[in-house]
Amino acid sequence: MEQNKENMAAKQETVVSNTSGKPPASKDFVINLDVGDPTMYESFWKGMGDQGAITIPSSQTISYFSDVTNFCWFLEPEFAREIRRLHKLVGNAVTEDRHLIVGTGSSQLLQAAVYALSPSDTTDQMNVVSVVPYYSSYAPLMDYLRSGLFRWAGDACTFKGDAYIELVCSPSNPDGFLRQAFLKSEGGKTIHDLAYYWPQYTPITSPADHDISIFTISKSIGHAGSRLGWALVKDAAVARKMTKFIELSTIGVSKVSQIRATKILKVVSDSYEHPIPGNPDKLFDFGRRLLVDRWKKLREAVKASGIFSLPEFPSETCKFTGEKAETLPAFAWLKCEKEGIEDCASFLRTHKILTRGGSYFGASPNYTRVSMIDRDETFDLFTERLSSLH
Amino acid sequence: MEQNKENMAAKQETVVSNTSGKPPASKDFVINLDVGDPTMYESFWKGMGDQGAITIPSSQTISYFSDVTNFCWFLEPEFAREIRRLHKLVGNAVTEDRHLIVGTGSSQLLQAAVYALSPSDTTDQMNVVSVVPYYSSYAPLMDYLRSGLFRWAGDACTFKGDAYIELVCSPSNPDGFLRQAFLKSEGGKTIHDLAYYWPQYTPITSPADHDISIFTISKSIGHAGSRLGWALVKDAAVARKMTKFIELSTIGVSKVSQIRATKILKVVSDSYEHPIPGNPDKLFDFGRRLLVDRWKKLREAVKASGIFSLPEFPSETCKFTGEKAETLPAFAWLKCEKEGIEDCASFLRTHKILTRGGSYFGASPNYTRVSMIDRDETFDLFTERLSSLH
Repeated sequence: MEQNKENMAAKQETVVSNTSGKPPASKDFVINLDVGDPTMYESFWKGMGDQGAITIPSSQTISYFSDVTNFCWFLEPEFAREIRRLHKLVGNAVTEDRHLIVGTGSSQLLQAAVYALSPSDTTDQMNVVSVVPYYSSYAPLMDYLRSGLFRWAGDACTFKGDAYIELVCSPSNPDGFLRQAFLKSEGGKTIHDLAYYWPQYTPITSPADHDISIFTISKSIGHAGSRLGWALVKDAAVARKMTKFIELSTIGVSKVSQIRATKILKVVSDSYEHPIPGNPDKLFDFGRRLLVDRWKKLREAVKASGIFSLPEFPSETCKFTGEKAETLPAFAWLKCEKEGIEDCASFLRTHKILTRGGSYFGASPNYTRVSMIDRDETFDLFTERLSSLH
Repeated sequence: MEQNKENMAAKQETVVSNTSGKPPASKDFVINLDVGDPTMYESFWKGMGDQGAITIPSSQTISYFSDVTNFCWFLEPEFAREIRRLHKLVGNAVTEDRHLIVGTGSSQLLQAAVYALSPSDTTDQMNVVSVVPYYSSYAPLMDYLRSGLFRWAGDACTFKGDAYIELVCSPSNPDGFLRQAFLKSEGGKTIHDLAYYWPQYTPITSPADHDISIFTISKSIGHAGSRLGWALVKDAAVARKMTKFIELSTIGVSKVSQIRATKILKVVSDSYEHPIPGNPDKLFDFGRRLLVDRWKKLREAVKASGIFSLPEFPSETCKFTGEKAETLPAFAWLKCEKEGIEDCASFLRTHKILTRGGSYFGASPNYTRVSMIDRDETFDLFTERLSSLH
């Protein structure tokens, strides 16, 4: 366990390379699709021109406090309003009678939720589990401080016992499938990580209605640099404990980010609710259009290469668009089928394509995760290079 | 220990009340000076008009990454430049050959520094200590996750052993005095919390030159809502481990806050380096002028009341201003001298004045901490009410 953790930490060190977040400088340059950096959305926001721009006077956001009448005192009321409005528009989450907690990205909220669900009146650590393949950050997030309150306990499918928190990532990072809680014990708890439950990635079939649902600005509308996420929480005591965690961890969440994101969310909702004739585009339509095209190109490249395979997804009617829609995940869970190649990520690395190998996700190294939400030129070079591998 | 922690957590719950961050609505209303909310600076920034305003286009700050050539990949290069420029201007810290790490406020950096200095190859927890009276957040910050890496071990003056990290807050929160490390063991480590080492609060006598020095935007220029701090770190390995902590904890720091703070810092430095004739004011001059006036009023109120006392501070020449300057702390460490009153904070609470009692700081309840950096009207009502207590 200890050994695993150290390996994990060592592995994590390599995630940020000096090609992260940058388009390749030339055709044979390193293509970095390891991190899910949502730079695909840059061209959308450029196309919106001044619509999402905001001017912030220097006398704003001085105080720590956003709203002291709310126990989540660092949540900007306007930001909360725009989040609830967006969920209502998209139909992907029940927000009525839910407590809304803002966090510095969804990572902080996941830690806050695990902290809130772990009892403090026992010396036994709470076991945190998730079904393989699970998001690569779950294990280090649970273990980096060696908390006496909780610990990473690995694959939910092999877990025995009642004292657990199951992290349910749906659609799943890395493989894109919709997921439900696997464990069913009455004493167990669940946290739903719904970062990708947005209509560009998956048909919206019903509003999420869980004890704790966590969302993020990074993947919903592409603003990763804002470091903002939010949680919808049923139980008031849990919501208060999550708030306490964020108060201790970072004394709240950037008000500057929140005020700016309020404007950005408003532009997204307005574009659907009050469309301006001749308005260039709508965010979820843009995202879906790009992902339709990218998944088509990727499947063609995989076919041309002949040594890889991809998951197949069902189509369903999306209640947001009213149309039949494919699942178009933000990551491709690519499997190398070629005999003699057991480590897909290493094989791709020799061809200067950086991805995140299956073992980070508790899965076989035959698999690797590839970001589908980078810039056009990076993605196009990737499919071009991939199709030439035999 | 366990009991203490629970008490601490319970106590912490009370910190945010619905009078936090608000001026009293009427003369006999609750005066909340518990938190050090730096709203004193609001009138300065209002006076600056458009100078510190910034317009952020919607296509900016999409990516997670700020600068992947820097191992602190989430640090905006322009923000780093303005921080170094400000330290050079003020002369309060050596920045040459120092690694600069940005954090979501100084709390996150303190945790990152303790994490970085606690060895992971042992089952013994590192002891984190500080001299009484110590900042009230240190204990809960070290213990809220019951980390197996480090633990709060209380007063540095009574600590025995070699395995420790001493937190040195100078000028000290709560009492305002300049501090040096108390423990001198060769095996021991120190972290300097220099949130208040700015010329409005204390004469700048020499540039700080420690292994790890932590600063914050909240107290230096008053922008607490931005949630930004930074650390100057000598050792590269420690700086990398601190970066790793912030990567795990929140996947970096709001780029929106950083870009906005860059503009704000630039206005501050420009006002000294390139003063515009007729320019309304300069930040540190403004802060000092207000604090001179407030400390004078507070000492008068204490005298008029007759039942309190305050620390006395030496004057020294400030190398930044070149003038002899008093110490004018951001908090008043008020002692109640009246016989029969053992709990100063409780006594003040009966008079609707909220402060933070001495026991939060490991000290006697005879003392209480009062914020000196709230809005004018709150401060004036406070001194008026205080002077009437006998």
